[in-house]
Amino acid sequence: MTLSADRLAALDAFVIDLNKASAAAILPLFRADHGLEDKGAGKNLPRDTHAAFDPVTEADRGAEAAIRALIAERYPEHGVIGEEYGEDRPDAEFVWVLDPIDGTRAFISGLPLWTTLIGLRHQGRPVLGSIGQPFTEELFIGHAGGARLIARGESTPIRVRECSNLNDAVIATTDPDACFDGAERGAWLQVRAASKLARLGCDAYAYAMVAMGKMDMVIEAGLKSWDIEAAIPLVEAAGGVVTNWRGEAIGPNGGQMVISGDRRPLDEALVSLKRSAK
Amino acid sequence: MTLSADRLAALDAFVIDLNKASAAAILPLFRADHGLEDKGAGKNLPRDTHAAFDPVTEADRGAEAAIRALIAERYPEHGVIGEEYGEDRPDAEFVWVLDPIDGTRAFISGLPLWTTLIGLRHQGRPVLGSIGQPFTEELFIGHAGGARLIARGESTPIRVRECSNLNDAVIATTDPDACFDGAERGAWLQVRAASKLARLGCDAYAYAMVAMGKMDMVIEAGLKSWDIEAAIPLVEAAGGVVTNWRGEAIGPNGGQMVISGDRRPLDEALVSLKRSAK
Repeated sequence: MTLSADRLAALDAFVIDLNKASAAAILPLFRADHGLEDKGAGKNLPRDTHAAFDPVTEADRGAEAAIRALIAERYPEHGVIGEEYGEDRPDAEFVWVLDPIDGTRAFISGLPLWTTLIGLRHQGRPVLGSIGQPFTEELFIGHAGGARLIARGESTPIRVRECSNLNDAVIATTDPDACFDGAERGAWLQVRAASKLARLGCDAYAYAMVAMGKMDMVIEAGLKSWDIEAAIPLVEAAGGVVTNWRGEAIGPNGGQMVISGDRRPLDEALVSLKRSAK
Repeated sequence: MTLSADRLAALDAFVIDLNKASAAAILPLFRADHGLEDKGAGKNLPRDTHAAFDPVTEADRGAEAAIRALIAERYPEHGVIGEEYGEDRPDAEFVWVLDPIDGTRAFISGLPLWTTLIGLRHQGRPVLGSIGQPFTEELFIGHAGGARLIARGESTPIRVRECSNLNDAVIATTDPDACFDGAERGAWLQVRAASKLARLGCDAYAYAMVAMGKMDMVIEAGLKSWDIEAAIPLVEAAGGVVTNWRGEAIGPNGGQMVISGDRRPLDEALVSLKRSAK
């Protein structure tokens, strides 16, 4: 059953509220330990005390708890799947899939490329997704009603760009040495060699760049469902494609993923990726 | 001869003006071709017409011209070295070293990690440096008077953090497959294996993260003088160290570089890096 426009509009407004609540929990902790050394406060503390303060875990948990509280209040019948607090009613008609901080390594390193991923499944199918970066005040939202970027309060429709072949494509992955096994890394290097330009270290921020037509393709592996589900409705609403490394729809358990703005470079890339498909 | 505090204060205020002028030239072109496909405007254009519009080159040139115009007006006796317009009076007492868009691949990909690098040499020695990211409204400035971040108008002193060994270090490089030769890549992988966490794709933004104590080390190779000179006074003013892969001061021609907040993990990393030093 397709969702009515009214229903989608209400959910769209709600996902903006969820992003606001999440941002309020995360932003005070981003770069939060800056200045600790300045004041000499850390100097006499045992090493364990430093290790015990983990801003990214605190922020991740605080944000997921804030998002879950709003969902429980507004839509108590909805299910929730999140990285920090597990699964509630994963078989409900509507299920929210959450990753408050995708790109924890970017967060730890002070880089404004971590994102908040919020996806909504309806009857098992991803129907709404948002990618938010509250430090840069950007929120990308996509569903059957369209895809847009809300940047510092201003909303603009977004769309993937055309790219007729891999040779013209700007592509991205997060970390070929850490995220790929040997065969996957080989496939990546092959695709990279055929592309115009490759960019590393972007995590899910790159998905949004494909959706807004600034990049052409993102190739990742070893993903969890909460790394992916927000991207599917956003990228599809912007005119793009999301598949696994066989070119098929990605299952609910994540794994390997390709996001492409245009179908043509994707078909070229799949020639290499298929050989390392799992 | 050391610069007086008054002289430094005037140059500090001037570098903020330079960054404003540069930002005004660059920001309208960042993500500028977004929306072209939306309107279908590009569909009937020959392929060459797309290729001819190169926002990053336009932005780079426009910004360097704007910076050079301000310098010529205010300090006509100063020299200037820039990537786009070459060298003017490179042997003057004061020489500005410019890279309006460091991280052109980030810029092209829509990522807010490109930076504007402005360095000032006095009698051949780097004495003032700024790293600006106008999209996120961040400007890092360092000189003998101190290091600070001006973020959306608010100024905060910054300082590197302590890190007693490489095992605890958050390190970064931009692209091991594209920026390093085989020996350099081997050295990087060795240092990476001993580190706590590695981050890719940050270009000079990572230098600022070391200066503000969010990362511990950046390792790069094949740099030009304008990629480096702004970083030296900033990182040193924040308490950090900048050397080549031998652990020595970097010459005026660039090359291999390590930036480290703390001397101790640098000494460990140099054991590996020295073997691939050029």
